[in-house]
Amino acid sequence: MSEFGFEISATDGPARSGVIHTPRGEIQTPAFMPVGTAATVKAMLPEHVAATGADIILGNTYHLMLRPGAERIAALGGLHKFMNWQGPILTDSGGFQVMSLAKLRKMSEEGVNFQSHIDGSEHMLTPERSMEIQAFLGSDIVMTFDECTPYPASEDQARTSMELSMRWAERSKTAFGAAKGRALFGIVQGGVYPDLRHQSAKALQETGFHGYAVGGLAVGEGQDLMFATLDETVPALPAECPRYLMGVGKPDDIVGAVMRGIDMFDCVIPTRSGRNGQAFTRKGSLNLKNARHADDPRPLDETSNCPASRDYSRAYLHHLVKSNEILASVLLTWHNLAFYQALLADLRLAVGRNRLGDFALEFNHLYGNSGAASKV
Amino acid sequence: MSEFGFEISATDGPARSGVIHTPRGEIQTPAFMPVGTAATVKAMLPEHVAATGADIILGNTYHLMLRPGAERIAALGGLHKFMNWQGPILTDSGGFQVMSLAKLRKMSEEGVNFQSHIDGSEHMLTPERSMEIQAFLGSDIVMTFDECTPYPASEDQARTSMELSMRWAERSKTAFGAAKGRALFGIVQGGVYPDLRHQSAKALQETGFHGYAVGGLAVGEGQDLMFATLDETVPALPAECPRYLMGVGKPDDIVGAVMRGIDMFDCVIPTRSGRNGQAFTRKGSLNLKNARHADDPRPLDETSNCPASRDYSRAYLHHLVKSNEILASVLLTWHNLAFYQALLADLRLAVGRNRLGDFALEFNHLYGNSGAASKV
Repeated sequence: MSEFGFEISATDGPARSGVIHTPRGEIQTPAFMPVGTAATVKAMLPEHVAATGADIILGNTYHLMLRPGAERIAALGGLHKFMNWQGPILTDSGGFQVMSLAKLRKMSEEGVNFQSHIDGSEHMLTPERSMEIQAFLGSDIVMTFDECTPYPASEDQARTSMELSMRWAERSKTAFGAAKGRALFGIVQGGVYPDLRHQSAKALQETGFHGYAVGGLAVGEGQDLMFATLDETVPALPAECPRYLMGVGKPDDIVGAVMRGIDMFDCVIPTRSGRNGQAFTRKGSLNLKNARHADDPRPLDETSNCPASRDYSRAYLHHLVKSNEILASVLLTWHNLAFYQALLADLRLAVGRNRLGDFALEFNHLYGNSGAASKV
Repeated sequence: MSEFGFEISATDGPARSGVIHTPRGEIQTPAFMPVGTAATVKAMLPEHVAATGADIILGNTYHLMLRPGAERIAALGGLHKFMNWQGPILTDSGGFQVMSLAKLRKMSEEGVNFQSHIDGSEHMLTPERSMEIQAFLGSDIVMTFDECTPYPASEDQARTSMELSMRWAERSKTAFGAAKGRALFGIVQGGVYPDLRHQSAKALQETGFHGYAVGGLAVGEGQDLMFATLDETVPALPAECPRYLMGVGKPDDIVGAVMRGIDMFDCVIPTRSGRNGQAFTRKGSLNLKNARHADDPRPLDETSNCPASRDYSRAYLHHLVKSNEILASVLLTWHNLAFYQALLADLRLAVGRNRLGDFALEFNHLYGNSGAASKV
């Protein structure tokens, strides 16, 4: 089994394009990872996810440990086999979801004790248990167990939380061990406080990871503050390692973050929006529920090679959405994932040609400064 | 545009196998038509419906006239283009759904006045309007407008209803006119009363149709009475025309009806069951909600060439069903449609080899006498 590796093939200011090597395949960067929470990218067949150009998907430790259970997935041959996805999988650590979804949480230095949001059963997540679960799942890129600092948080709160996450990151690395061919990423925390972000980035590098994620953003701070935090944080990360902005974002968030040197993204927006009748296009986003689409014979994107974008009229998609048909979710999710992958492919190309600035200007002009999702 | 036609290639007792020719393609018979009520075979991409082996699908006049509207579909290029289905489409007349779904119905010799179950808007369905709607949709096989006789009904009620349907059948034919390349099927009514069925079959043949459907069955009378009614009705129909048993049925219903000389079927069972977590197999049906599947690594059918049947474990399907994931509906619907098409292919083969009796014996032995759906 070959090693995990990252090669940068081009740069354009702080932005980079390249490739992450994993034993399960290559990941072109900047990369967008569709979210496969419960061992399925919602409403998608895995072969269609791959056909959109996705090289890697994300799985959720919190959801999978509760249902169907990490040990069960291991006994069935691991998450890849379970969900019929051949490419690499990144799993989060459960740290974010346990804070946002679980009930009756008790935090301690040891970890988080909580009750399942599904059946009330009691569980414990610690750095060691998170590493064990991600190993059971067979994850290719493992995330350290961290506490997602709430927003807003005072600087003292953010420091206390970040320092706990740094101790947990060390314990995560110890528990991860020398897992051949698999990678462990550390997560920078520190809220919107530059000093804390610098300290966190430094602490993680002293421990040493295969890649570095920026966590705790896109939690309500707004795009300006998110970009400002990236401007402070990214230069403090080692240039030779992949950088992953967790849970981001809208198309214009991604363009801005790539310009600031981010290599990897994940977000539920394309999938969740698709299930809610929203379609992304280069001219902004469309709400297919709107009656103005009822007689529109145009497809979402006739130039796309994605069947969902090309082979169905807006009138038909409107009809499916209004009729609550499952095919509405299927087609709009598929289209949105294809849109995201096409955007990332364009960003990689723009970096390679050293014209990312022009691309971003054109993109923002078409999309509007306020971004796509806010215009819906 | 070529003509509609039917060729019988083999017979085995009353059973036949053959091919229906339409300008949009051939239909191997006996044929099962997946139901595409609201311009979508629920949870299915049209290319996957075709890949299961379906040559033709069914659309519902009642649903489509209410939403998105027949005139709108016509303006968008017809139902085939609207839903991206290239093969033939049979549309029902709206007669069945207007009785089962619409509100505040008023029956008259003229037709049925009713309120939409979606928005309460008022509509009128007559033989003439039903023909007009089916022409707007671009249907390849059009059904006459009839009244679905309720069950149970006295012989007098069934006669009155059947005679009305026969007058509507004549009006349907007049309104249909000489539509080149498209076919019009008459519908035999008469409840469970052999004399009425004979009279209905005779009346329809005097009017003359491209094919003959048996309506008003599978409405609660049970399989024995359904088969007995077929035994009386089918011999009264012209051998040279396709015979269509409407709304049927479970796999064992289909086997028994093919043995009695039926050529075409439609039913929501494979699609609806799939959305409810039920999978058909040659050894009976499975309820994937059941915990006994939670650790089962076997696919539903490893010998199938349908990805949904072959590439996912029962454990995974159980997980998807328990998690209310859209992919559960997608995969189980797909599998069930593939199962139905494989069954019909086997029936065609058995007729061709003159060994339908053996096939039915073996099938009933595996499936159990009580049939598939009753065992769930």
